[in-house]
Amino acid sequence: MENKAITKIGVLTSGGDAPGMNSAVRAVVRSAFYYKLEVFGIYRGYEGLIQDDIKKLNSRDIAYILERGGTFLKSARSDEFRTPEGRKIAYENLKKHGIDALVVIGGDGSLTGAHLFYKEFGVPAIGLPGTIDNDLAGTDFTIGFDTACNTAIQAIDKIRDTATSHDRLFFVEVMGRDAGFIAINAGIGSAAAATLIPEKKMPIETLIERLKVREKAKKQANVVIVAEGGKSGGALEISQKVKKFLPNYDIKVTILGHLQRGGSPTSFDRLLSSKLGVAAVEGLLHGKYDVMAGLINNKVVYTPIKRAIVDDKDVDEEDFRVAKILST
Amino acid sequence: MENKAITKIGVLTSGGDAPGMNSAVRAVVRSAFYYKLEVFGIYRGYEGLIQDDIKKLNSRDIAYILERGGTFLKSARSDEFRTPEGRKIAYENLKKHGIDALVVIGGDGSLTGAHLFYKEFGVPAIGLPGTIDNDLAGTDFTIGFDTACNTAIQAIDKIRDTATSHDRLFFVEVMGRDAGFIAINAGIGSAAAATLIPEKKMPIETLIERLKVREKAKKQANVVIVAEGGKSGGALEISQKVKKFLPNYDIKVTILGHLQRGGSPTSFDRLLSSKLGVAAVEGLLHGKYDVMAGLINNKVVYTPIKRAIVDDKDVDEEDFRVAKILST
Amino acid sequence: MENKAITKIGVLTSGGDAPGMNSAVRAVVRSAFYYKLEVFGIYRGYEGLIQDDIKKLNSRDIAYILERGGTFLKSARSDEFRTPEGRKIAYENLKKHGIDALVVIGGDGSLTGAHLFYKEFGVPAIGLPGTIDNDLAGTDFTIGFDTACNTAIQAIDKIRDTATSHDRLFFVEVMGRDAGFIAINAGIGSAAAATLIPEKKMPIETLIERLKVREKAKKQANVVIVAEGGKSGGALEISQKVKKFLPNYDIKVTILGHLQRGGSPTSFDRLLSSKLGVAAVEGLLHGKYDVMAGLINNKVVYTPIKRAIVDDKDVDEEDFRVAKILST
Amino acid sequence: MENKAITKIGVLTSGGDAPGMNSAVRAVVRSAFYYKLEVFGIYRGYEGLIQDDIKKLNSRDIAYILERGGTFLKSARSDEFRTPEGRKIAYENLKKHGIDALVVIGGDGSLTGAHLFYKEFGVPAIGLPGTIDNDLAGTDFTIGFDTACNTAIQAIDKIRDTATSHDRLFFVEVMGRDAGFIAINAGIGSAAAATLIPEKKMPIETLIERLKVREKAKKQANVVIVAEGGKSGGALEISQKVKKFLPNYDIKVTILGHLQRGGSPTSFDRLLSSKLGVAAVEGLLHGKYDVMAGLINNKVVYTPIKRAIVDDKDVDEEDFRVAKILST
Repeated sequence: MENKAITKIGVLTSGGDAPGMNSAVRAVVRSAFYYKLEVFGIYRGYEGLIQDDIKKLNSRDIAYILERGGTFLKSARSDEFRTPEGRKIAYENLKKHGIDALVVIGGDGSLTGAHLFYKEFGVPAIGLPGTIDNDLAGTDFTIGFDTACNTAIQAIDKIRDTATSHDRLFFVEVMGRDAGFIAINAGIGSAAAATLIPEKKMPIETLIERLKVREKAKKQANVVIVAEGGKSGGALEISQKVKKFLPNYDIKVTILGHLQRGGSPTSFDRLLSSKLGVAAVEGLLHGKYDVMAGLINNKVVYTPIKRAIVDDKDVDEEDFRVAKILST
Repeated sequence: MENKAITKIGVLTSGGDAPGMNSAVRAVVRSAFYYKLEVFGIYRGYEGLIQDDIKKLNSRDIAYILERGGTFLKSARSDEFRTPEGRKIAYENLKKHGIDALVVIGGDGSLTGAHLFYKEFGVPAIGLPGTIDNDLAGTDFTIGFDTACNTAIQAIDKIRDTATSHDRLFFVEVMGRDAGFIAINAGIGSAAAATLIPEKKMPIETLIERLKVREKAKKQANVVIVAEGGKSGGALEISQKVKKFLPNYDIKVTILGHLQRGGSPTSFDRLLSSKLGVAAVEGLLHGKYDVMAGLINNKVVYTPIKRAIVDDKDVDEEDFRVAKILST
Repeated sequence: MENKAITKIGVLTSGGDAPGMNSAVRAVVRSAFYYKLEVFGIYRGYEGLIQDDIKKLNSRDIAYILERGGTFLKSARSDEFRTPEGRKIAYENLKKHGIDALVVIGGDGSLTGAHLFYKEFGVPAIGLPGTIDNDLAGTDFTIGFDTACNTAIQAIDKIRDTATSHDRLFFVEVMGRDAGFIAINAGIGSAAAATLIPEKKMPIETLIERLKVREKAKKQANVVIVAEGGKSGGALEISQKVKKFLPNYDIKVTILGHLQRGGSPTSFDRLLSSKLGVAAVEGLLHGKYDVMAGLINNKVVYTPIKRAIVDDKDVDEEDFRVAKILST
Repeated sequence: MENKAITKIGVLTSGGDAPGMNSAVRAVVRSAFYYKLEVFGIYRGYEGLIQDDIKKLNSRDIAYILERGGTFLKSARSDEFRTPEGRKIAYENLKKHGIDALVVIGGDGSLTGAHLFYKEFGVPAIGLPGTIDNDLAGTDFTIGFDTACNTAIQAIDKIRDTATSHDRLFFVEVMGRDAGFIAINAGIGSAAAATLIPEKKMPIETLIERLKVREKAKKQANVVIVAEGGKSGGALEISQKVKKFLPNYDIKVTILGHLQRGGSPTSFDRLLSSKLGVAAVEGLLHGKYDVMAGLINNKVVYTPIKRAIVDDKDVDEEDFRVAKILST
């Protein structure tokens, strides 16, 4: 514990909420207490930092939040924080409370904030990957991703019930921004006829061809999973194109939407966020600043924020290959 | 058991699938066996009756289906059955298999078929209310309704996680066709700011007024439940109107869609469908034809199909009043 | 609203916790606000009333509790409240806060307390049926019962997976005290081979006979549901007796236990508790004291507490008959 | 694909069933079809191999099984297979059907069978780790483990509702045989006061000391997770010891039991089992015999069965440390 300076840690969640954020905050607070540090909750992300929406946290604040979806610290966009002036105000607020280090839980935009804050004011800051999209380098899995995958397949299981009952074809759009992680997991996990992900352009003709083969085999009922960020368009657009070529199909579309963001975190996300919460506090105490704590091959790894954000992280080729072999 | 003629029962599911249909079919088959009758499964509803997609069912066919969503007998539209010629073919197929009575599980369209079939050919036919919409008279609850309500609130619970985290207002559209039953249950069950149902026209101004009061009280995060069949439009349309008057709100829309049709039936739906499945077989054996078996005040009641279909069944005024008092 | 005196309501939960208690408390608070009343939360049941663990509730206290299991007001046993001296202290505490009416949510023991309190001190008190056991007269369903049934069948569905995979016979013990409501619902809902409930003594020989028939039919895998309060003993005891006579069976036992008490309330329980919470406040305002608000045939009914507690409420004979016909 | 001999693959599940086994079988069948191989389902594990309970599988057999718990191929103990004579008969049955390679899905006992079968008869055999216990070397995660962890925490979440409502302390016993993997995940995931695992002996005095500290801090409500294979005894035994020293605690015990084995597989288990199913078939085609296909650091790895069985695999020290820091 070489850095004796740190005695008060601030923690905030920022960007789109993800299941496990609460569990991560709880782990930050509990390990801070374990190391005799104080913790301040910064509400509504960077916006709250600017507006001084900051409160010292105690054990009671984090009781029974581990299992809850969303983030009790709330999250918000902050245009002001993007300006040097805004960040100056934020820094003054930190100083006012005597907060000498920061844990930021969020996606790439949120981590960028932590990076800037460290660069401009030298505030020891560490990031945790909190996003359902799994699109951050420096960690095999982001906090919330596993829960979102389970939410998606449970919804798709229900959709498959009705698809089968009516011999229908459903195009189901899942979240993931520019990344196909949720889609590929949902595609394999729901025995999809095809999975369209941003990383791999599947020409509409290929999709139609595959569906025609199925039609001949009298297999109509099924799902096609479409990642929201796909280059061929969303589920609605693609379904309409397909319909033109396969008029006999009874085609429906469901856009799962924001329900994928919520829900009680899975066992996997509770473990991941707990480990990373501890790693964040211990990282700060060991002088690891401007990094993101992630889990690679089941071990905690600290990656410079700049690299975690910029590096491309694509869907595993092997997963894509498996999805293709197993598609029905 | 005055009607000795009945020895072979046919059972079919028709219209939109609903959780509990499988459980109802199982109950029909098991009670038929209990009364030493044979049962034939008619696949794909009336369409399968016309195309002779009929199979004798045994114990194995109904093992482990009680807990499954959808309908293993499948469902389909049948334009042909709407014609006298189509129904003639269907009747010939029944005769061919020696089927002397019919159990039809479905919504109003499906029950109409059973009624016609009885009227035109004298085939003893009994209906069971199988629809998530709960829009049939002659029963307090239709098979699948309770499961759909639970699916809806579980999804909305997740949406509320993210709504709260971001202080957003979500317009969530639920199913129910022209009836607001799912919506009112979801509205009360998810502490909604407002619930818009087809039975009660709420002027957009009233909704906006209520939301403005909330805004002043700094309560932004919440959900508004919108029934799909509402006269003021769907969730998307209404949200856009609201947005104009409340530009500061961060508004999102989720249309739950077909996932509400699937899923393992709840305890309530398993019990309801089991009781009605027994009631269908015993009704036929007691000469109750052209009726729908339903549950009113926890007792089995046989209602003439014609009345079950035509009578209006609206959301309980008391439920609507409670929803209003409890809206936040 | 003839009783002008009531301006401050106290609310407490008592006895075994049940899913929906939070939702009921929320409904009490919100409808109190609707009628411009103040509400005080009494923590840890009657014990808190004696120890003056009483706090005025506001909107924030009841935000996001509707969907949570357990009771945020907590529950506890109180030996002291059973003494006149204890109740005297409790009454003094009520007076101190100016609380002029009481809503008590709980089972028969809890409602007895409300009754005594009204009798001895004239405190307007109304009870709500909060127990998973469904063993109160004056209401078709108690708050928490539907959730407990769903928890039970979801657990039993999982047990059936493994039972089938290994051709095993599971004896599953469910809760319900002296009542077989959860058991009969679970038995029908999980296609049980037999259901043993306290209300109906099934001789062990009958059970063994039925299982022998199954054995001959090569159907080994299945579940037998045993209500905890059964006269023939618990699941463990019965399974051991059966094992002696059916040595070839691979028999296992699972006692579901306290997990049946928790969990987010179902749609049914959210609606029920919401309606009854409103009914409690409106009942008090209309001078209905010493009664329990329940739902009979979907309508709110106020029953004298004494009758709600004393009257026997048994499992519906019809449900029992259906369970027998459908047992596999 | 150097081994041209393999054209017919047999697949069986053996030992305790685990969620994801069906999904693994599906992946074996679908990838076999992809490589133009035939697949035979061997029912009831090695017992079915001896009794010739073998059936050629087609697409229909594996439709809608991916999402189901248990194993549709069933599992059984086989004393006969443990004898050379039994294995001889089993081998003859394989030959009779022309099956020239075997995929065995199960735990260490099951994989031992595959190993012997390869050693004695030269039958190309590959194993997949199918057990909820996660106690196999050669893979980071076994099929079924993630689902069992989720089942456990969902049950414990419910138990915590009631624990908190009554300020009780629950001792919850989870499965895992001699391994503490489920326990440590459940302990971290449910904010347990302590987690007792077989790998780490915690003296009862230490546990009591920790609970006394909590008692002083007025934190009574909580859970202690106990792995079934712990050296200090099961949950019941430990709770009784603790009760003697902490008489004021309201202590309850729940043994989760067999419900942990069932249930629809999680997204993680669906992906894992799908990948390993493909890896099994491709391994056989590449001449990888007498090995178990596992996933290490997200990559498929083939480990000699002998090593996968014998090597100790203990709970990650880091996880244990995290559990301790975060215990409440």
